[in-house]
Amino acid sequence: MKIVIDMMGGDYGLKTTVPSLKEFISKHKDVFIYAIGDSSLVNEMKDMERVKIVLSKTVLRMDIDPMSALRDNESSLMIAVKTFIDEKCDFIISAGSTGALLSASVMKIKRIPGITRPGLISIFPSYKDNKRFVCCDLGANNANTAEELNQFATMGSLFYSFLYDNNNPKVYLLSNGTEEEKGSVVGKDAFQLMKANKKIQFCGNMEARDPLFGECDVLVTDGFSGNIFLKTMEGTAKVMGKMMKDAFSRNIFTKLSYLVCKKGIKSMKEKMDYKNVGGAMLLGVNGIVLKAHGASDTQAFTHSLDLGYLLAKKDIITKFKENISAKWEALKNF
Amino acid sequence: MKIVIDMMGGDYGLKTTVPSLKEFISKHKDVFIYAIGDSSLVNEMKDMERVKIVLSKTVLRMDIDPMSALRDNESSLMIAVKTFIDEKCDFIISAGSTGALLSASVMKIKRIPGITRPGLISIFPSYKDNKRFVCCDLGANNANTAEELNQFATMGSLFYSFLYDNNNPKVYLLSNGTEEEKGSVVGKDAFQLMKANKKIQFCGNMEARDPLFGECDVLVTDGFSGNIFLKTMEGTAKVMGKMMKDAFSRNIFTKLSYLVCKKGIKSMKEKMDYKNVGGAMLLGVNGIVLKAHGASDTQAFTHSLDLGYLLAKKDIITKFKENISAKWEALKNF
Repeated sequence: MKIVIDMMGGDYGLKTTVPSLKEFISKHKDVFIYAIGDSSLVNEMKDMERVKIVLSKTVLRMDIDPMSALRDNESSLMIAVKTFIDEKCDFIISAGSTGALLSASVMKIKRIPGITRPGLISIFPSYKDNKRFVCCDLGANNANTAEELNQFATMGSLFYSFLYDNNNPKVYLLSNGTEEEKGSVVGKDAFQLMKANKKIQFCGNMEARDPLFGECDVLVTDGFSGNIFLKTMEGTAKVMGKMMKDAFSRNIFTKLSYLVCKKGIKSMKEKMDYKNVGGAMLLGVNGIVLKAHGASDTQAFTHSLDLGYLLAKKDIITKFKENISAKWEALKNF
Repeated sequence: MKIVIDMMGGDYGLKTTVPSLKEFISKHKDVFIYAIGDSSLVNEMKDMERVKIVLSKTVLRMDIDPMSALRDNESSLMIAVKTFIDEKCDFIISAGSTGALLSASVMKIKRIPGITRPGLISIFPSYKDNKRFVCCDLGANNANTAEELNQFATMGSLFYSFLYDNNNPKVYLLSNGTEEEKGSVVGKDAFQLMKANKKIQFCGNMEARDPLFGECDVLVTDGFSGNIFLKTMEGTAKVMGKMMKDAFSRNIFTKLSYLVCKKGIKSMKEKMDYKNVGGAMLLGVNGIVLKAHGASDTQAFTHSLDLGYLLAKKDIITKFKENISAKWEALKNF
C-alpha cells in the first residue's frame, strides 16, 4: 500500500505528523510512505525504511483561498496531491486547509464519474456506548442539489458499512421536522430520491437534536446546514466544557471533587472529542483523500491514518464506482 | 394593558398556566387578562379580579398541520387569536403548536406592511455572565430571501435594544465562514443588504460555533439553518447533561462529589436552559404574538409573560412599523 502524507499541514506540523508516521509504519509492514515536507524533515526521518521524503518549500495558510492554493506548486499540499497521482497511491492525508485540499482534489484527482460535487464526511460520537454515526456533507459545498444529497446517502452508507461491518445502516436526512413533508425545497426532493434509492435503508427525516442519541448511522445534509450542525455541536460542547471547569473551580472542595470524578469526566470529554474518531474523507473524489483536523494531535492524526488504511484495504473507491448511478439512471428510478 | 392567554397549550396546560397567571397578575396591577380554556378553568380561577374567562372546547395537538388548526374554531388557540383581534389586546401568548400559532397569526392578525414572511426570534444564553443573544429565524420558514433576512436584522436589532437597553447591538449573519464571500447564495445577498442597512450595526458573518461565546447580540439566519442551530444546541446540551449525570453516578464517592459541586452544576444548567430566558416572538406579525416553549414550567411561562409585558410597554410593533422599509425602499438603498 502506497500512502502520501502532507507532513507540514495542520496547527502543529511535524510535531504531530512525525511521531504519528513512525507509530503507523511500525504497526503496518505492508505500507510505503511518501512524506512531503521541508528540509527539516530529512533529519527527523533519516534512515527510516519504507519512507521516501519528497521536499516541499512552502506551507499553505489554513485560510488560503482555493485559487492561490492551486497556484502554489511548491507547497507541501500541492506536491502531496501531485505525488498521489504520479505514484498511483492508495490514499493521501493532510491536516492543512480544507478548501485547498478540496480544490486540489477536484481539479487534479478529479471526481468519480457521475458525481457532481464531492462532500466532506466525518465520524461523530453518540450517547450510546461506542456507537458512532457519520455525517455528510459537513461543508465542502455552500448548497447541494437533491441528487447530490442522494449520492451522499449512497456513498455515506457504504462508508459506514466498511467502518463498522454493518451492511444495512440506517440513513436519515437532516431536516426541520420528522414528517415527510418537512424540509427545505431541495430537502423535500432529496427525501423522494432517497426513498426510491434501493441501495440504502432510508429511515426518513431527523431533527438536529437527535443524531447524538445514537439511532442514526448515516446523516445526510447539504454542506451549508451540515456546517451549521458540526460547528454548533463544537461550540456548545466547548462552552459546556468551560462551564463544567468553572463549576469544579469554585473552591477547594469542588476542586477535590474533581479528582474523584476525574475518570468519568475524562471519559465524557474523550467521547465528545471528535478528534478521537479519525479525520474526514472527501466523498466522491476519484481516490481516498483524507482531511485530518487542523488541530490534530499525534493520536488524532494516527486515527486518520488508520482510517485511510482501512478504507484502502476495503477498496472503497471501486465500491463507490459500482454504486454511483450516472444521473440519468437516478432520474429513471425517480 | 389587555392580554390574551391560551391556558390550554403546552405539555402541562393548566398546571403551568394557572399559577403563572396568578403570579403575573399579582405583580402587575395594570393588566386585564382574557384567559382562554375549558370549563375546568372556571373552578381554578373563580372570583379572580381582572380576569375574564373565555371558554374553549378543544386543544390543538402539538403536531397538528396548519390547515386543520385553522379549521378548529373551538380550540383554545384559535379562540385566543380571535379574542386578541376582537378585544384589541396588547399581546397574546400560547405554549401550543408553533405551526398553528404561526398560521393563525399570519392569516388572522396579518403581517406588518412590508414584511413578506414573519420569523421566530428567541433569547439564548452565552458563556459570558448574564450576556444573552437573540436569534431569528428559528424555524418559522423553510427558506428565506435576502430581503427577509435583512428585515429580521432590523427587527431583531430593535427587539434586542428594548430587552437590554442597548441602542447599538452587534448584528451577525450565521454563515459557514467569517469572510464576506462565504455563505449560501441567499446569505451572500443578505450580507450586502445588511451591510447597506443603516438601521443596524452589522458586524459580518459568524460561524455556528461562536454565538455562545457572547460577542454576538443579534444572530440572523434563514429558518431552516436557524432550526438546525437551535436543535443541535439543544441536543448537544442534553447529551452532555446526561453524560455529566453518568460521571457523577459512577460510585458513592462521585455521588458525594455531586453534592459538593451541586451549586455550580445547577447554575450551569440554569444558564444553558433556554426555558429560563422567556419565550419566542413572531417577528413581523402585526401584533405581539408570543410562543412559550411547549415544555414550559410555571417559571418559564411567567418569564414569557414578563417578556410580553415589557415589549407591549415599549410599543415594539409601532417601532417595527417605523423601521421596516417597504420593498422598493430597501432595494433603493441596495
